[in-house]
Amino acid sequence: MRPLRILETSLYAENLDDMQKFYCDIIGLELFSRVEGRHVFLRCGQGMLLIFNPERTQQANGSVPEHGTHGAGHVAFAIPAHELEKWRGHLQRNNIEIEKEITWPTGGHSLYFRDPAGHSIELATPQTWNFDN
Amino acid sequence: MRPLRILETSLYAENLDDMQKFYCDIIGLELFSRVEGRHVFLRCGQGMLLIFNPERTQQANGSVPEHGTHGAGHVAFAIPAHELEKWRGHLQRNNIEIEKEITWPTGGHSLYFRDPAGHSIELATPQTWNFDN
Repeated sequence: MRPLRILETSLYAENLDDMQKFYCDIIGLELFSRVEGRHVFLRCGQGMLLIFNPERTQQANGSVPEHGTHGAGHVAFAIPAHELEKWRGHLQRNNIEIEKEITWPTGGHSLYFRDPAGHSIELATPQTWNFDN
Repeated sequence: MRPLRILETSLYAENLDDMQKFYCDIIGLELFSRVEGRHVFLRCGQGMLLIFNPERTQQANGSVPEHGTHGAGHVAFAIPAHELEKWRGHLQRNNIEIEKEITWPTGGHSLYFRDPAGHSIELATPQTWNFDN
């Protein structure tokens, strides 16, 4: 048995407003639900990006098991190669500093920048991992 | 513009051997590559689970931007509903304690347990988020 795919990816931030604005308005994810002060859940393709306030989720609440991290995490989003130039311009127009660009031996290409919580966010073409698309 | 999907999801652990064994042998992910002491990269469907040693990735190395977290993160893997019972038995046979089970209002179902680094790992049916599959 193997899982079908990764269904939920988590990041942690104390300021959920800033994160919701960033991931909806700049990255283009779809808001799924929000519990004030605790989490913002966002849809991305057939998966979910879950943003939690670790001050809330590190405490046992009788529902889901406790979790929560501190420090800069890392998430990458897949973008089609033909949109790379548009994304670069979009980030620049929104004053998001591109911290690094890498062209990989596979032919994939990655743009790195920071989200409002300081996580290292990447837009990468699927070729980075030898995926066709 | 919207990203196609989440391409890379990250977890952090100092003991990469334990994590590789767990994610390959118990969860059924495919080993993609490994750099001794720094990371293990695993394929899951059309995405990647990246496991990093934060002691290494928090230091600038001139390549990718630094990142690294401490504490219990959270990742969920999608499984088909008809495999739920098989997964439950598989975890039990491998002495992985199921910390929690939840049936959601959507009809989805989740099993929660811990990986060797203490991260909260979930196997969930896609119905949890109203995905058809």
